[in-house]
Amino acid sequence: MSTTPAPTSATGAGAPVAPRADGFGVRLAAAMADAGPVCVGIDPHAALLTQWGLPVDASGAREMGLRVVEEVAGSAAALKPQSAFFEVFGPEGVAALQEVLLAARSAGILTVLDVKRGDIGTTMGAYARTHLAEDSPMPADAITVSSYLGPDSLNPTVELARLTGRGVFALALTSNPEGERLQHIGGAGGSVAGAVVDWAGVTNAATGETPGPVGLVVGATIGSAVRDLGVDLSDAGGIMLAPGIGAQGAGAAELRDVFGDARDRVLASASRSVLGAGPERGAVRAAARATVDEVRAALA
Amino acid sequence: MSTTPAPTSATGAGAPVAPRADGFGVRLAAAMADAGPVCVGIDPHAALLTQWGLPVDASGAREMGLRVVEEVAGSAAALKPQSAFFEVFGPEGVAALQEVLLAARSAGILTVLDVKRGDIGTTMGAYARTHLAEDSPMPADAITVSSYLGPDSLNPTVELARLTGRGVFALALTSNPEGERLQHIGGAGGSVAGAVVDWAGVTNAATGETPGPVGLVVGATIGSAVRDLGVDLSDAGGIMLAPGIGAQGAGAAELRDVFGDARDRVLASASRSVLGAGPERGAVRAAARATVDEVRAALA
Repeated sequence: MSTTPAPTSATGAGAPVAPRADGFGVRLAAAMADAGPVCVGIDPHAALLTQWGLPVDASGAREMGLRVVEEVAGSAAALKPQSAFFEVFGPEGVAALQEVLLAARSAGILTVLDVKRGDIGTTMGAYARTHLAEDSPMPADAITVSSYLGPDSLNPTVELARLTGRGVFALALTSNPEGERLQHIGGAGGSVAGAVVDWAGVTNAATGETPGPVGLVVGATIGSAVRDLGVDLSDAGGIMLAPGIGAQGAGAAELRDVFGDARDRVLASASRSVLGAGPERGAVRAAARATVDEVRAALA
Repeated sequence: MSTTPAPTSATGAGAPVAPRADGFGVRLAAAMADAGPVCVGIDPHAALLTQWGLPVDASGAREMGLRVVEEVAGSAAALKPQSAFFEVFGPEGVAALQEVLLAARSAGILTVLDVKRGDIGTTMGAYARTHLAEDSPMPADAITVSSYLGPDSLNPTVELARLTGRGVFALALTSNPEGERLQHIGGAGGSVAGAVVDWAGVTNAATGETPGPVGLVVGATIGSAVRDLGVDLSDAGGIMLAPGIGAQGAGAAELRDVFGDARDRVLASASRSVLGAGPERGAVRAAARATVDEVRAALA
């Protein structure tokens, strides 16, 4: 169980926490400048494990995860393990994910654990302590979160993240075809996605950290949705995790359209294009570096 | 890894699946009529473990979970383990949850695993296989799901659930104070919550099962929100998991207001009021039965 102190002081839930120089957003921005604005997914699903000649079980997921950590550390800003592909192997799969997270920490590469958690009160507190406390059993530098229960239900998680120099990426505007039916509700100036972006902006501003600890997930291929909904991503104050950049995805023109002046805060998420290059030794590293070059060119 | 066949046939994603007499909604409705319309939460958080004299670790969570299964089987319709309170103990906590789920199955009581998962494509498929396939490592009769990524992103999960006689409960209208800011967006006739309820109605109707496998989470204390948003829960076709009934929550008048003619499809969720009665042997069972009586009276 966590021994991290409660994130709020006796003066109330909104009590100020001093801005920290090593906040998550600041650390991630430095890693992006250094190694390149790319986050490599670790998605050990059956097809990929088979391609790599690994068993479709927890040991295969562990092996793939550790190999990706070893090859990508230093060649991309962050790694994004997909929890579902480990959970599907039960407690052994979760133990494999734990090993991968600890290996990434040892290798000095940031982790964004893709869990898309979203709950309220003490339950959300338990998810936060699972991943974002100093003594978390499944430690990550950030987790993805989902705000169907209202973005403010994530505030205590952000408060814990500020204390420990961690962060979150909240789903905002995603590019899956089913997303529009929910995220666009409310339309121009008052949409669901806009409410999440507004919340991120206010929350990041209150931290005094630039970029702040609250990132957003924004699909690079959402086209004109940002404009149509009146959303301004420059105001969000955090880093945007963006699937769909390069190759069959968004190029320079589309990126200008979606992210505007916030293009320097875009962290491209890449999975298949990097992991699919394996399993030959060095191939994943080479693919990660090629992706960094491609993304840097597209974002220039 | 799952050996359950893909839920869709070669004729396409919407290919019909025959309605089954032992679908999740039908099985749950029978259990509600038999043992009472109450779902007892299993929430082994630190305060409750301490009250029970159990260690605040995976072994304590396991012990509490197994005790609740033993006492509540036969005295309530279902159990709802809260995944976060097990995950916080890492892989050992997940192994404890696995034991609790298997014990519930052996005891013949239905399980609604509260995980609030929500993702897309192969990732959501992995979550579904983690819990809803015939050979899932963490098997439950239903899971809670969240639809920020659009309710239709949950369709493949529902298709797998239909194949295996399992179900889902989608977050719809929750009573936490932060929920309104997102779920009410769009207002009367076009709200976020309404989109989820509409999706459930269409999806359940397509199954030919009554009640269908898609339940909803609807707070019993949401007051006039259903009316204000123009949502009709009678049309949803599934069972509604409702926290906040009895004691400090909603009474008969409020339940009529929120659920109208769908009151016979309400499954009351109760956690603190039941588990807080422990740890004396028999006390949890007695509290579960008292809650059943109270809920039956309020829903009459």
